[in-house]
Amino acid sequence: MLVVMKKDATPRQIERVIAAIEGQGLTAHAIPGAQRTAIGITGNRGSLDRNLLETLEGVFEAIPVSKPYKQVSREWQPEDTLVDVKGVVFGGKSLVVIAGPCAVESYEQCRTVAQAVKDAGAHLLRGGAFKPRSSPYSFQGLGEPGLEILARVREEVGLPVVTEALDPEGVDLVEKYADMIQIGARNMQNFSLLKRAGRSSLPVLLKRGMSATIDELLLAAEYVVSEGNPNVVLCERGVRTFADHTRNTLDLSAIPAVERLSHLPIVADPSHGTGRRDKVVPMARAAVAAGADGLIIEVHHDPAAALSDGYQAVLPDMFRDLMAELGQLAPVVGRELRSGTAAAS
Amino acid sequence: MLVVMKKDATPRQIERVIAAIEGQGLTAHAIPGAQRTAIGITGNRGSLDRNLLETLEGVFEAIPVSKPYKQVSREWQPEDTLVDVKGVVFGGKSLVVIAGPCAVESYEQCRTVAQAVKDAGAHLLRGGAFKPRSSPYSFQGLGEPGLEILARVREEVGLPVVTEALDPEGVDLVEKYADMIQIGARNMQNFSLLKRAGRSSLPVLLKRGMSATIDELLLAAEYVVSEGNPNVVLCERGVRTFADHTRNTLDLSAIPAVERLSHLPIVADPSHGTGRRDKVVPMARAAVAAGADGLIIEVHHDPAAALSDGYQAVLPDMFRDLMAELGQLAPVVGRELRSGTAAAS
Amino acid sequence: MLVVMKKDATPRQIERVIAAIEGQGLTAHAIPGAQRTAIGITGNRGSLDRNLLETLEGVFEAIPVSKPYKQVSREWQPEDTLVDVKGVVFGGKSLVVIAGPCAVESYEQCRTVAQAVKDAGAHLLRGGAFKPRSSPYSFQGLGEPGLEILARVREEVGLPVVTEALDPEGVDLVEKYADMIQIGARNMQNFSLLKRAGRSSLPVLLKRGMSATIDELLLAAEYVVSEGNPNVVLCERGVRTFADHTRNTLDLSAIPAVERLSHLPIVADPSHGTGRRDKVVPMARAAVAAGADGLIIEVHHDPAAALSDGYQAVLPDMFRDLMAELGQLAPVVGRELRSGTAAAS
Amino acid sequence: MLVVMKKDATPRQIERVIAAIEGQGLTAHAIPGAQRTAIGITGNRGSLDRNLLETLEGVFEAIPVSKPYKQVSREWQPEDTLVDVKGVVFGGKSLVVIAGPCAVESYEQCRTVAQAVKDAGAHLLRGGAFKPRSSPYSFQGLGEPGLEILARVREEVGLPVVTEALDPEGVDLVEKYADMIQIGARNMQNFSLLKRAGRSSLPVLLKRGMSATIDELLLAAEYVVSEGNPNVVLCERGVRTFADHTRNTLDLSAIPAVERLSHLPIVADPSHGTGRRDKVVPMARAAVAAGADGLIIEVHHDPAAALSDGYQAVLPDMFRDLMAELGQLAPVVGRELRSGTAAAS
Repeated sequence: MLVVMKKDATPRQIERVIAAIEGQGLTAHAIPGAQRTAIGITGNRGSLDRNLLETLEGVFEAIPVSKPYKQVSREWQPEDTLVDVKGVVFGGKSLVVIAGPCAVESYEQCRTVAQAVKDAGAHLLRGGAFKPRSSPYSFQGLGEPGLEILARVREEVGLPVVTEALDPEGVDLVEKYADMIQIGARNMQNFSLLKRAGRSSLPVLLKRGMSATIDELLLAAEYVVSEGNPNVVLCERGVRTFADHTRNTLDLSAIPAVERLSHLPIVADPSHGTGRRDKVVPMARAAVAAGADGLIIEVHHDPAAALSDGYQAVLPDMFRDLMAELGQLAPVVGRELRSGTAAAS
Repeated sequence: MLVVMKKDATPRQIERVIAAIEGQGLTAHAIPGAQRTAIGITGNRGSLDRNLLETLEGVFEAIPVSKPYKQVSREWQPEDTLVDVKGVVFGGKSLVVIAGPCAVESYEQCRTVAQAVKDAGAHLLRGGAFKPRSSPYSFQGLGEPGLEILARVREEVGLPVVTEALDPEGVDLVEKYADMIQIGARNMQNFSLLKRAGRSSLPVLLKRGMSATIDELLLAAEYVVSEGNPNVVLCERGVRTFADHTRNTLDLSAIPAVERLSHLPIVADPSHGTGRRDKVVPMARAAVAAGADGLIIEVHHDPAAALSDGYQAVLPDMFRDLMAELGQLAPVVGRELRSGTAAAS
Repeated sequence: MLVVMKKDATPRQIERVIAAIEGQGLTAHAIPGAQRTAIGITGNRGSLDRNLLETLEGVFEAIPVSKPYKQVSREWQPEDTLVDVKGVVFGGKSLVVIAGPCAVESYEQCRTVAQAVKDAGAHLLRGGAFKPRSSPYSFQGLGEPGLEILARVREEVGLPVVTEALDPEGVDLVEKYADMIQIGARNMQNFSLLKRAGRSSLPVLLKRGMSATIDELLLAAEYVVSEGNPNVVLCERGVRTFADHTRNTLDLSAIPAVERLSHLPIVADPSHGTGRRDKVVPMARAAVAAGADGLIIEVHHDPAAALSDGYQAVLPDMFRDLMAELGQLAPVVGRELRSGTAAAS
Repeated sequence: MLVVMKKDATPRQIERVIAAIEGQGLTAHAIPGAQRTAIGITGNRGSLDRNLLETLEGVFEAIPVSKPYKQVSREWQPEDTLVDVKGVVFGGKSLVVIAGPCAVESYEQCRTVAQAVKDAGAHLLRGGAFKPRSSPYSFQGLGEPGLEILARVREEVGLPVVTEALDPEGVDLVEKYADMIQIGARNMQNFSLLKRAGRSSLPVLLKRGMSATIDELLLAAEYVVSEGNPNVVLCERGVRTFADHTRNTLDLSAIPAVERLSHLPIVADPSHGTGRRDKVVPMARAAVAAGADGLIIEVHHDPAAALSDGYQAVLPDMFRDLMAELGQLAPVVGRELRSGTAAAS
């Protein structure tokens, strides 16, 4: 923290600010300047509040310095974290592609889509049994029967499964049936859920909230990691802005930003990130070109009949073409795209 | 829903869109125009997806028409809902002022602030026992002992209590100790929590999410109401924008907007809405001038020692002055400000 | 500027940062901390770039300290600036109300509206002869004939006139016919226009850009003031956010923020700030309650026939009622609302 | 336009809305529904205002249907526009890379950077002689002497030049010395400048405003095209959002969005779009992967000494490596990257 005094601050005001800082067990370093004095603070334990200091007389502004997260930072651990989901590894050289329907609607639908994405080379199967929907009148997911379908399809098709939990009880169920817990954008700061996920043995796919900064995303991950679960994969899925040509604004610069600040892997979700089928493929390519460790993509064999978000699902054919493009693109950015079977072996 | 066809759409494409609409049990009305054809849809049951229609060939765009919420809309119920919290009524002629510390820190702190706000004329006591904090290393609240303090202070001081629940278990506890359940901005789309609050007998104070539209706020309220709890008070508490001179951008136009669309009361939170003590009082006045049914304000007798958000808490003296200003302001907007005691009698 | 070094920065890296700073003629102050070293910089002449420093090895981040504007700051001039427009004074105790049509459409329209707002107590007449419109096919204003109408109506009705200039040539014309130059939101960073306005003898009404921070607004004002024209009135007119219930999000907290940082007066434009007639009156009241020095309001006697923005114009009757409300509201916030005639005498 | 009536609208209110529409020479089509009536409008000439209709009694909302731009739309011209700048063609199969310093600082600096980017394969040279700067105290560019330097370097190095004009007079000068006129983000709605550029014989590089929607960007282009200049290249350069890890949020989805709606070429500016050197290269790759027709990149041989924006300039070595990566990436997206010399021959 750095405290900048007003130009006309009196020596007595400066002394009182120093006393306030030292009263908290911290060390104050006065830096007299041509126009004004600044006061550096060390020994910072995260307890000192910027705005608090600004209420003292003579203070112009207080500026935070240290980042508020610890264990997820690259300073804490320089080397990349590898997150292993039943042999599929996020954060290494191989791109990981998660694909499947937005929601599990039936065994037939889930099986059809799962087989299609497996054949196209996907590494993990996605599909929601619990759906967070803005309206109470929208389809809310099949619940536990949806998880049973996912577990059955997993065995038959041979893809590990990631699926969303909306609350701590949901985590209990996801642990029973699936291989990775997804925490959605609306729940990025549902701290009860984050803490429960932090006590799980399953890896976590944590999506960025619609108006979350990168610092807040990393702090949400810190909630999980600080409870004992180091296996967190972050996900950029679009933020909310004034722009109205897509459902959200996919902020791909989050990928190099996270890579610089944290050792955790990060994937992109161009399906929710754009909300429009015709933009999913270009933005999927762009995410990989920006350095993403993987993608999560909604695929549906009959989007017009989908019970949720059908307009953003790509068709199996489009997905297969995309995988072929990614196979060409990966080496350009020093990556590789192994087939789902190979990756899991 | 209105489907707008492309200028060069063929008659066959138009027929197929009509067939798709009617295949869902809805009625399609073709509107041939000079440049293009539009197709109106009636019998809408909320099931039809705009984006789905846009994937059909020849379609230029599909435009939703009906609002997605029902029971909370003014069309559903033209007269204002009155929400009664132990005799304090939101939505009527009297302004309701909720005040108290951000977090319950100790019996002494809570009692001191409660007595001060009661003496100044506040109607309800606020104070958090469970605090949603971005960082796992920040003070998270006292938990149930904090609720016990609130309940004791309520009896001693004589103000009904509103306090936040972070999860369904938290609602169980809040029901045991308090008079109104607060659902915070970060949890506005925590649907498990909304549903649980909808099954409570206590009224709910529902804060707008940091990037929630008014439609989404009303849909979140619809979750509570549709579960059987009609007693919801909405709260504008600032949204996240690029503007950096306040912690959030307090969107006071939400007040007349909600008043037009819904029968539910709405209050404003200038403390979180600005995040800066020196802006709380002007924005509190502004909220009342814009038509708010009340205010929720953080007060602390020793902000520099507060364990959370001390920089946005006003001092008891400032609060007393504000109440006096509000007393003068209320009649200008056709309201009245009764003393806490009178309001509760 | 404060430079924060990485935890593992080497002494040599620190030395090089210090050398880079001193190579620019500035003074570096090393502040060794428990975890890392910070380096304060004084003698700052605005030339040093934060991001530049961040490219040096071993640097974690660089944090700017001084505000970039000078003459418009309250530190430069503690007392409020009073801006006098033909005897109507912004920045003093009296609220100033500017009213009139969005665009000058005809002599009859302008005269009718001007007389109505004068009778209701407005102090200045607004009306655009040059209209910035998103589409080249929308009505662009009458041009110089519109200014002639404004000048004639000014004489007949007795209200000083403020009108917009879109380019330096427009300023020449506005100087010929009107009493105050408006610079619109889209032109807040049209620096050629700002410099030309800075060389005018007329006062300037400078609107905040749609995505401008308060610092940028004050810097735009600094362009005008640094060219020699101290008579600048700022105007909050709404910023662009994700919120879709109003055309813009009126950020009333800008009013106390500007008041703290600058000595320049600030008014609010609830017409553009909301874009909806039914929200103009509540937000006008709110702006005054927040401390605005005045308002600018669109009034039209026949909004359905207006050539631009008719939906946000209030009717003369609504305007008269609003003025009556403002008359009651003003004393609550330590202001007064004098009649237009009195204010100008 | 579609007008949606309230549920309880009376037949008389509906008639009056129809009369209002037909009074404007348009045709109204009533669509009675189960719950409410909607009214479609055809013969739309762009004159009808959504918000105007919403002020009529009984109207719930009015929804615009047609896009407001014409000549720049893909419906108007299905085939891609090719913009030829001295033999360098935007919009075809070849990617076009514009590179150079942010600002022209001296002949030596400009020549050095120009030669470096030419050698690395760039097709056009950028460099500002007139710089739009938030602060009046920042370096404003060399003015006409800067243009003279650019013209001299163009001859010596053999790259066509694009440079920014800030006002109509600036366009006169740019026409004299350069090959393409850049209109910056802050001037995207400087309509005097757009109209002047529309009367130029030089092609125009039009940057998206910081808070402009895609519709507004296309309307700004329509200003240029409707004045007679069809040669417009659009540029995505980042929008302003709450996100603080980059200077702006580069909205790459604008690229497929523009491609769908318009026949004009679009390039991306990852330098301003991120404002951080370490993010320029990943976002440049991402833009090409998303389908951009080209890139504009700031390069400086000595960024620490740059007079503006040095922190976002890449070094010549980084630029050369990027060009090599783009050469590999181009074929993956069906493009090619020809050397500057080849492209211009």
